[in-house]
Amino acid sequence: MAQVFPSFLLDGYRNFMSGRYATERDRYRSLAEEGQRPRTMVIACCDSRSAPETIFDCGPGELFVIRNVANLVPPNGLDTTFHSTAAALEFGVIHLKVEHIVVMGHGRCGGIAGALATSAGHAPEGDFIGKWLTMVSDMANRVQAQSDLSLSEQQTELERISIRQSVNNLSAFPFVKSRVDDGQLSLHGAWFDISSGELWTMNGDSGDFLRPAA
Amino acid sequence: MAQVFPSFLLDGYRNFMSGRYATERDRYRSLAEEGQRPRTMVIACCDSRSAPETIFDCGPGELFVIRNVANLVPPNGLDTTFHSTAAALEFGVIHLKVEHIVVMGHGRCGGIAGALATSAGHAPEGDFIGKWLTMVSDMANRVQAQSDLSLSEQQTELERISIRQSVNNLSAFPFVKSRVDDGQLSLHGAWFDISSGELWTMNGDSGDFLRPAA
Amino acid sequence: MAQVFPSFLLDGYRNFMSGRYATERDRYRSLAEEGQRPRTMVIACCDSRSAPETIFDCGPGELFVIRNVANLVPPNGLDTTFHSTAAALEFGVIHLKVEHIVVMGHGRCGGIAGALATSAGHAPEGDFIGKWLTMVSDMANRVQAQSDLSLSEQQTELERISIRQSVNNLSAFPFVKSRVDDGQLSLHGAWFDISSGELWTMNGDSGDFLRPAA
Amino acid sequence: MAQVFPSFLLDGYRNFMSGRYATERDRYRSLAEEGQRPRTMVIACCDSRSAPETIFDCGPGELFVIRNVANLVPPNGLDTTFHSTAAALEFGVIHLKVEHIVVMGHGRCGGIAGALATSAGHAPEGDFIGKWLTMVSDMANRVQAQSDLSLSEQQTELERISIRQSVNNLSAFPFVKSRVDDGQLSLHGAWFDISSGELWTMNGDSGDFLRPAA
Repeated sequence: MAQVFPSFLLDGYRNFMSGRYATERDRYRSLAEEGQRPRTMVIACCDSRSAPETIFDCGPGELFVIRNVANLVPPNGLDTTFHSTAAALEFGVIHLKVEHIVVMGHGRCGGIAGALATSAGHAPEGDFIGKWLTMVSDMANRVQAQSDLSLSEQQTELERISIRQSVNNLSAFPFVKSRVDDGQLSLHGAWFDISSGELWTMNGDSGDFLRPAA
Repeated sequence: MAQVFPSFLLDGYRNFMSGRYATERDRYRSLAEEGQRPRTMVIACCDSRSAPETIFDCGPGELFVIRNVANLVPPNGLDTTFHSTAAALEFGVIHLKVEHIVVMGHGRCGGIAGALATSAGHAPEGDFIGKWLTMVSDMANRVQAQSDLSLSEQQTELERISIRQSVNNLSAFPFVKSRVDDGQLSLHGAWFDISSGELWTMNGDSGDFLRPAA
Repeated sequence: MAQVFPSFLLDGYRNFMSGRYATERDRYRSLAEEGQRPRTMVIACCDSRSAPETIFDCGPGELFVIRNVANLVPPNGLDTTFHSTAAALEFGVIHLKVEHIVVMGHGRCGGIAGALATSAGHAPEGDFIGKWLTMVSDMANRVQAQSDLSLSEQQTELERISIRQSVNNLSAFPFVKSRVDDGQLSLHGAWFDISSGELWTMNGDSGDFLRPAA
Repeated sequence: MAQVFPSFLLDGYRNFMSGRYATERDRYRSLAEEGQRPRTMVIACCDSRSAPETIFDCGPGELFVIRNVANLVPPNGLDTTFHSTAAALEFGVIHLKVEHIVVMGHGRCGGIAGALATSAGHAPEGDFIGKWLTMVSDMANRVQAQSDLSLSEQQTELERISIRQSVNNLSAFPFVKSRVDDGQLSLHGAWFDISSGELWTMNGDSGDFLRPAA
């Protein structure tokens, strides 16, 4: 397993050191000494095209970030040993006291495509990915049955429906709900269009996704 | 739940659009049309100070990123419905065919601190975070028993030990192991010092963490 | 019925005469002498916010325009005396030899809202509007059943689905089909967002609505 | 059917966005949020030279517009499935509560010319256009029999007679008549001379077409 660390990552790291770190050295030192106090948690996809720090142009200390396939929040109450998302939620909400949680999905999501493909009878290869995507399988079945929609429309629709579900699942964690009810925490949805770069934010009342005024 | 999307995120997003997106429009469009083909998966911490895209100065399409508390890879073979990390692993390895997986830890990790505090009898508040950290509890107990070490040394030690464990857990997934054995995939560890900005990479043979030559 | 012609229309007409007509007098005279030769037919909604001449910034002689509620093309083969849309289609295609037909829908369409309301059990008042909207009632029922969607998403979806149906209905008129097959005529869909001013055009292969590159 | 959207329309649309939309952005947004409330419905011809928004210099939200061949209002009481004009009439009168309906004809109308040609034994090609024009065939026969008139005089005469008939047909819809009787709605005729740009308005009592004072 004597594997050489990828040189392009070391090159990038050197850029970071001579660039961002050099200009923000004090901020990094202060963040190290005083600890992080991010105001915002983002639950985003693993996708290489949707890094929240890039899209929101955020620096060190600003975003506490969970990334899993298709930015899903599993429901509360699972009898599971390692609930990765819930553990991170607790850490961010109870311990870091974030004020905002943003579930950020994106267009052309491979996970969502996998869920739709499963509904169409073509489950993705693997023992775990299929189970993970069962979180959206009911919705995927309903969307996939809408033959009036183009495949791309089905994809966008399921991406947005699943963001709404994840925001709802967030609310079902008692430690989230109590803080939302107290006005200490707010929940948001967003959807990023990789091609156009557009960000659509979810209206919390209607569930609609709209582009913020420029 | 009619909550206004945080304005500082929208401000950052506008910076992104007028900056990075404006100069990389073609790259985003091409990544949207042709799909992502990242060569590298990074398993990093949710911590707001350790975004892999920032530290490795990577642009869109380069890094497939899993982020959970303390950048842990749970062991294979769990009888669990939603194995977030394994699902993302399968997606990146089987479907995206990444060539590298980097487990990237960092100094002053709150999750690792929580594991050590638990060993010392002060478990962090919450129903899920404690369970999540049982993944490193045996190691935390052993580190915590080393009374010759300062608390800061115990912390750094457990951060690095858990990276080694996560790399080992990676190897125990058959779809990872077979590709590593075939030379199609390599596994790496790295540790980032938030204060100094130093990156230490793990030697795959010895498990040592060393600073790469400048 | 001695009713005075609305003065605000006469005021607008005087603006036209001193403005556009004064600068395009020769064009109007030529169009009168030589007759119209529009290259394009647009089938648009009656809605006061979606005039095709305004949205496409077109002058006299450019667009042959049908406007009905919800920009619908009824199917061919109806045993009806006065098929308004088919008569205009024949006039534009056979007699004027237009090269393009654009079915242009728009957001927040009252007709489409009426079709969805009918599906939900609240048919709009009137003897004719309900019958007219039966053209999209099957699709409206399917869309209305999608409880995963917000009302606004249902509305946009039906607006776009009905554009696709209208384009399909166009193709079913033999005099349209033969010219399309000969390459003399092309059919298009478009959707206009009243609020943002965005125009989305339909991809003829996939049926997707996309914004053209800026 | 993968047909490229006409580039001259996209060029015009860009002019609209940088011109009218840019200066009236607030009006468009408000019209989107609050819905349309046009005071006036115009029933005009599909002819590319007679766009009512152009001739009355009207902006978004001002005119609810029906356009069919020769700006005809079919009679009420037809046993037809899709009565396009009546459906739009109901929508504008009952739902939008317009205060004015203008039937606007124009000179050199191809539909009216077709009706006269039919009377002279030369019916226009097509299965639908001929049926549509039977609405004015009795009048066309009578006009065509007036051998003292030049062809151009016959044309103008039938254009104006048919406007009077359409205004009368409007009055025969009970939901129109009741509002006219209550003073909530007024009906108008107008005739536009494409060559000279002149607008002639109909006197509701006498039926005469007169040029309004400048």
